[in-house]
Amino acid sequence: MNVGFVGLGIMGKPMAGHLIAGGHTLFLKTRREVPAELVAAGGTACATAKEVAEKSDVVITMVPDTPDVEAVLFGEDGIAEGLSAGKTVVDMSSISPIATKAFAEKIAARGAAYLDAPVSGGEVGAKNASLTIMVGGDEATFDKVKPLFELMGKNVTLVGPTGAGQSTKVANQIIVALTIGAVAEGLLFASKAGADPAKVRQALTGGLATSRILELHGERMIRRTFDPGFRIELHQKDLNLALEGAKSLGLALPATAVAQQLFSVCVANGGKAWDHSGLARALEIMSNHEIADAS
Amino acid sequence: MNVGFVGLGIMGKPMAGHLIAGGHTLFLKTRREVPAELVAAGGTACATAKEVAEKSDVVITMVPDTPDVEAVLFGEDGIAEGLSAGKTVVDMSSISPIATKAFAEKIAARGAAYLDAPVSGGEVGAKNASLTIMVGGDEATFDKVKPLFELMGKNVTLVGPTGAGQSTKVANQIIVALTIGAVAEGLLFASKAGADPAKVRQALTGGLATSRILELHGERMIRRTFDPGFRIELHQKDLNLALEGAKSLGLALPATAVAQQLFSVCVANGGKAWDHSGLARALEIMSNHEIADAS
Repeated sequence: MNVGFVGLGIMGKPMAGHLIAGGHTLFLKTRREVPAELVAAGGTACATAKEVAEKSDVVITMVPDTPDVEAVLFGEDGIAEGLSAGKTVVDMSSISPIATKAFAEKIAARGAAYLDAPVSGGEVGAKNASLTIMVGGDEATFDKVKPLFELMGKNVTLVGPTGAGQSTKVANQIIVALTIGAVAEGLLFASKAGADPAKVRQALTGGLATSRILELHGERMIRRTFDPGFRIELHQKDLNLALEGAKSLGLALPATAVAQQLFSVCVANGGKAWDHSGLARALEIMSNHEIADAS
Repeated sequence: MNVGFVGLGIMGKPMAGHLIAGGHTLFLKTRREVPAELVAAGGTACATAKEVAEKSDVVITMVPDTPDVEAVLFGEDGIAEGLSAGKTVVDMSSISPIATKAFAEKIAARGAAYLDAPVSGGEVGAKNASLTIMVGGDEATFDKVKPLFELMGKNVTLVGPTGAGQSTKVANQIIVALTIGAVAEGLLFASKAGADPAKVRQALTGGLATSRILELHGERMIRRTFDPGFRIELHQKDLNLALEGAKSLGLALPATAVAQQLFSVCVANGGKAWDHSGLARALEIMSNHEIADAS
């Protein structure tokens, strides 16, 4: 298949590499120069996103944020200018579910299909082709693109209509942030009350409190390793999508609002680049006690 | 070993049964009549908790709340009156970590040792002898009682000095409540934004958002099965221990405070006997949208 790929950063570069390795013909564009190894592997660098769209059946975008998607789709020499009927745009960035619906409508007006397909699993998942891919759109388009998704990820799910992929990614980021907060408040209480936090984590593992976060981020809180990982400033962007989305949908998300404020406590204390497990630092600063302290 | 067991309710009865089956000589007391099957199995019913303590080397208590422990320990004809040097009191109830420290001091004044050893795993864990047991106290006493714990549970951990077992149980209840809230806010957002919540749960399972709560309680939210399970009014009691404890320890637990308020929204809407997964109902009522609704 002729596949376009716009955005070849930490995530996009290995993802595009998997598509080339899977036998597809790739047309590439990114803000900087297209990585030489993708060209050496057989990919074609294009001058504009418009040119990528002209040469491709499916165009994938993987850029940082909502305005970036808008720019590569609808800016000058953007993807929309190179689209024609029967083509498909697949946005794998993590952006606003509400903006996504508007983008899909504008793409549909040009006769092209649109999927939103954000991922989780980070750089490691992108390199290992083990990403979780959450897809919104119609089933026929999903079935057409699914072979490409399966070259990049392991758990590929059509979760609903346009925007549902982005909404699921936001839900993922809500659950992850709030579970980090859950583990942090639990370990902080136990530590301050005199229990050994490492033994507490061990005692709770396997029971109802078990989570991937207790396992990974709980250990980071105990070992004091707050290097990213996933940066707090990025998780703040995601919770902002959650809280803005909740406002426009008419939903109350009180614990998400608290988690966002705790991330702000981190930022106020120099932590915007801490791993998101550093949310525990906010509670520690507020309570003047570290989880790893003897009480 | 001669083992006393005071409190033979839903949890205590099967736990005492495992000790009898393990070859120990049991002396029994409970508010109502001692269950006939425990006597038939070889246990001895006693008239008072004092008598239980007189006849036993280790006395276990398993009663509902802090005042109940205080009553069976220090009330008229209570355990304290029957203790002598070398005996051990093991409180397996879930009660205040702070009261626990005071109880242990009063028991120590009579020359006896004290362990706090609350459990998680519920009625099923009690019946299957698969409880998680979180123990506070000194190592020598723990080693002496460990063979009894291993007849009742699978994951037995000494987590710190006196009170640390209760603090760990509180930490467990904090993490469980807040993880329920995490899953509820995530699924509510995704549902209202148009994704299929069952597919969202499936897509997130296996990733960073994975937890036992997403698996079990997430499914209850989607299937609308809010029968206990673990009742909201009991979880409110546990979060009260967390928030009172945090106040006296000088800790801020903002997300725990929010979760307690959400449980109160449930109670205000007739939900004190709902399963704790019903915390999602509070968010649904506040937002006028059910997770299982099509958006």
